[in-house]
Amino acid sequence: MPIYTPPLKDMEFILHDVLKIHESTTPGYDELEPDFTGAILEEAGKIARDVMAPLNEVGDREGCTLENGVVRTPTGFKAAFDTLREGGWTGLDCDPEYGGQGMPYVLNAAVGEMHAGSNMSLNMYPGLTHGAYSAIHAHASDALKQKFLPKMVTCEWTGTMNLTEPHCGTDLGLLRSKAEPQDDGSYKISGQKIFISAGEHEMSDNIIHLVLAKIPGGPDGVKGISLFIVPKFLVKDDGSLGARNGVACGNLEEKMGIHGNSTCVMNYDDAEGYLVGDAHKGLRAMFTMMNEARVGVGLQGLSQAQAAYTNAVEYARDRLQGRAVTGTENPDGPADPLIVHPDIRRALMDQKAFIEAGRAFLLWGATMIDSYHRSDDKAADGLVSLLTPVMKGFLTDKGFESTVQAQQIYGGHGYIEEHGMSQFVRDARITMIYEGANGVQALDLVGRKLATDGGKHVMAFFDLVKNFIKDNAENETLAADFLEPLKSASKDLQAASMFFMQHGMKDPNAALAGSTDFLHLFGHTCLGLMWAQMAKAAQEVLDAGTDDEKFMQNKLVTGRYYMQRLLPETGLRLARITSGATPVMALNAEDF
Amino acid sequence: MPIYTPPLKDMEFILHDVLKIHESTTPGYDELEPDFTGAILEEAGKIARDVMAPLNEVGDREGCTLENGVVRTPTGFKAAFDTLREGGWTGLDCDPEYGGQGMPYVLNAAVGEMHAGSNMSLNMYPGLTHGAYSAIHAHASDALKQKFLPKMVTCEWTGTMNLTEPHCGTDLGLLRSKAEPQDDGSYKISGQKIFISAGEHEMSDNIIHLVLAKIPGGPDGVKGISLFIVPKFLVKDDGSLGARNGVACGNLEEKMGIHGNSTCVMNYDDAEGYLVGDAHKGLRAMFTMMNEARVGVGLQGLSQAQAAYTNAVEYARDRLQGRAVTGTENPDGPADPLIVHPDIRRALMDQKAFIEAGRAFLLWGATMIDSYHRSDDKAADGLVSLLTPVMKGFLTDKGFESTVQAQQIYGGHGYIEEHGMSQFVRDARITMIYEGANGVQALDLVGRKLATDGGKHVMAFFDLVKNFIKDNAENETLAADFLEPLKSASKDLQAASMFFMQHGMKDPNAALAGSTDFLHLFGHTCLGLMWAQMAKAAQEVLDAGTDDEKFMQNKLVTGRYYMQRLLPETGLRLARITSGATPVMALNAEDF
Repeated sequence: MPIYTPPLKDMEFILHDVLKIHESTTPGYDELEPDFTGAILEEAGKIARDVMAPLNEVGDREGCTLENGVVRTPTGFKAAFDTLREGGWTGLDCDPEYGGQGMPYVLNAAVGEMHAGSNMSLNMYPGLTHGAYSAIHAHASDALKQKFLPKMVTCEWTGTMNLTEPHCGTDLGLLRSKAEPQDDGSYKISGQKIFISAGEHEMSDNIIHLVLAKIPGGPDGVKGISLFIVPKFLVKDDGSLGARNGVACGNLEEKMGIHGNSTCVMNYDDAEGYLVGDAHKGLRAMFTMMNEARVGVGLQGLSQAQAAYTNAVEYARDRLQGRAVTGTENPDGPADPLIVHPDIRRALMDQKAFIEAGRAFLLWGATMIDSYHRSDDKAADGLVSLLTPVMKGFLTDKGFESTVQAQQIYGGHGYIEEHGMSQFVRDARITMIYEGANGVQALDLVGRKLATDGGKHVMAFFDLVKNFIKDNAENETLAADFLEPLKSASKDLQAASMFFMQHGMKDPNAALAGSTDFLHLFGHTCLGLMWAQMAKAAQEVLDAGTDDEKFMQNKLVTGRYYMQRLLPETGLRLARITSGATPVMALNAEDF
Repeated sequence: MPIYTPPLKDMEFILHDVLKIHESTTPGYDELEPDFTGAILEEAGKIARDVMAPLNEVGDREGCTLENGVVRTPTGFKAAFDTLREGGWTGLDCDPEYGGQGMPYVLNAAVGEMHAGSNMSLNMYPGLTHGAYSAIHAHASDALKQKFLPKMVTCEWTGTMNLTEPHCGTDLGLLRSKAEPQDDGSYKISGQKIFISAGEHEMSDNIIHLVLAKIPGGPDGVKGISLFIVPKFLVKDDGSLGARNGVACGNLEEKMGIHGNSTCVMNYDDAEGYLVGDAHKGLRAMFTMMNEARVGVGLQGLSQAQAAYTNAVEYARDRLQGRAVTGTENPDGPADPLIVHPDIRRALMDQKAFIEAGRAFLLWGATMIDSYHRSDDKAADGLVSLLTPVMKGFLTDKGFESTVQAQQIYGGHGYIEEHGMSQFVRDARITMIYEGANGVQALDLVGRKLATDGGKHVMAFFDLVKNFIKDNAENETLAADFLEPLKSASKDLQAASMFFMQHGMKDPNAALAGSTDFLHLFGHTCLGLMWAQMAKAAQEVLDAGTDDEKFMQNKLVTGRYYMQRLLPETGLRLARITSGATPVMALNAEDF
């Protein structure tokens, strides 16, 4: 069975040596002293390792079952969820007004990586609740907030997101679910929703569904969509639970992975619901939830890569097979460990160099989200909005690829379910799909985010890179090994952006044909920037003197690997982008 | 449920317009007139589509079960296997002396793609039998051949390969299974083998296991390995079946995919076995089987990509979601089909351009195998031996990636099992692992094949490319669109080979650190060559006049896509290779 190893030291390095969060002026960050974050992360890591990880394979094997409308989750899930609830982990960064602990999101993100990495299916129950909490918190009336949020913060009640219908996923304008206004101000919701994660289960006393539906007579398409709270059990004015509402799980989906999470077909039949925000403005409210969810999904993709990687390293150290080409390294054994072989190391370095920079990217993004929410920093909001599709799309594409590499190290033992490597791959696969398939992320990036506010945010990104390079030009550790490759990647990214600007207006297909390549080009550039920043921080610690020189030296080694072997992909991506629309669009639809 | 669409036209284009097999002087090829091959392929395609494909999902869902030593295969598998047997498909290219039809391997390869594509798990039962047949045919005594081969050609008896043991896979020198010589010339085999595909089942009257074991007193390591035939039921001199032999299935593995094939732990306990070939020379005999099996696994990888792709195309044409950015294309519908979107097309073109060239690569390889076997063409043998790890490693890496892309087009519907796209991914995944994990293929390529016969075969490959470019320099269709990119890729491949030659002797890690990149660089160059050859053939057909101009034009369009958007990856691979061993080997094993 796989183990889970909390990456505490790597996280603390990013938070305190690289991002220096304890020196930040963002309100609330003054609490985030290294001792404090270290204690929190250690505690969260223990739960991940000791409580959640041992149930990961159980969840995969048992899955969820539906009988007479009741969904049963895998053995042990409820007890583990209780541990999360009792420890206050579900409300770590929630509003104290509703019982939350008011911690910055950056801390929640670090905790979230560990909880998702140890058991993604289980962590989705509080994860979706948090998303629903955020949408209600941002858009609902005070009365609704008072009624629903306190129990959602504690996860006594869990939450869901209901967008997809059988005939429409991405294109929400097509949705058919209806909301009929009632005299008392409530609505009667009817329709069918599919792929609803955590849609039904017995682990919480109530389930608060957030449902997109159309109020008859409203505008067509996405402009006529409204958002509703639809509780599984109606909630009386005194807060106690009333009758069962007209919502039920019609079926559970058989899936490739995340078997421990109940993916439900939800049927709404005149269910009582309450409007969140303004009528017909539901999409905007849902986007609050989706942007948060997208960063969260990026975290999931990374978390599976990390969990798979640590197991692959153990296996590569233990499994004896073949001899090192440069001479026996384990003369007393029948063979050398796998890790002596260069191709095994290449695969491990690919994973390690991606994971460590991916984590830095996400935590940096989290600090910008905090900066916006806590000090209304609009520049931070603009930049993190631009980068959100990159965090989601790039980190899940590469996260999945990374789990496949980890599985590959096990050879045939990776293909059988016994070692758990298959599960990492199967679980990671969904992260490329849900909360907007990665092609939709690329479209969002190129078709919308790039040009937002006249391209101001992408220019801010370029400035950031340029200034970092300029400010550190004299740094001997950085100059040749980090800054040159970063400059080259950034140049590729600028050239691609320029290509879109020149061609996108008269031929939008030319931009969209290169959208996925652009997302990857952007992702690599971000990770290159992260490695340059990490290298700088590592060298600073080394210069200041440290007990753990090896750890810092290894950061430099791993960073150089990224710059030399992974970052050059930006050139290939640029070549694809500048080949334009013709190769992609030349065939007729019937000729495929 | 997914459908299977036999790629008949594409196959016939490759066989007759590109490879022009009917004009070849290879003995037996004179029979391969277009009408004849067309009829065979059509018949094989019908079985794939109508008999095998409908059972693919059944096999995945039901899997195999073990009860009291008896393995049950999924519903319908035996009847479908009977159809294959009765049609003579199992012995298509087998020796007529043992009841085979004596057809060239190239025809068997084309049939094999369809049968593997429609139901990989089912097709593995005859597939492994064929591999065992080949090893016995090439290395066993006449008496053993007479005794076992006729029933294996008809698949009344099936075959298996037994290499792996719990503690050793790639490193066969470690194996522990023992073969004690008996007075009658037979051996008593004892030991445990794992991951034995089709190891036990009730679909054939007998199972002929080929088992690697050590005869006590022989040399250590791989030099002391011998190959044995160990039948499930002993075979009497009159050919009738006798007592059950000392071999039994101890367990079935739970796997990520290929659930319809029984993957067994096989326990040998003083089982009667017969030496194949010379004592201690078993590895050589097994390699006969493995080289064939490696090409076959390349075919499997490609076949899953093809099957997944055709379904993704259908889905992209049917599923209405969003509007084309250049203006509505389906004004009467609520939305446009997915296929209008550039990023969907990009994903489909990636798949299509890979699959068509991958197929040409494999069928070209098959003609070289025929040329060696039928006219002792040692140059063909040298070249196809060099290319075998590329066919296996590159086509399965990319084949898997291609199934992931196909699954992605379905969005959430691709993640649930209902549409069968998950199965393509899960089944394709094993092809990167078995018959030598792809890292081992890369090692075989760089560490062994490249330098074979003083590098003669890789030089032959370069000459082939160079001459093709020279001979077609005046061809307007080819020059800019195909020959220039091919020349550039070939230059990258030569530069990488040169780098290995310069550094490999004094620092073998420098070569091995780039082995997987080299395998991909080589694979892309081969597919670039295939596209150049296909473009030439398509233009020739167009020039000669044809009823189906569109088909030939589409070959040119798809080929240009490969040259513009996929082939440039060679530059990235070269950059990684020339970064050498340092980035890969710099960390200590304990620092991962």
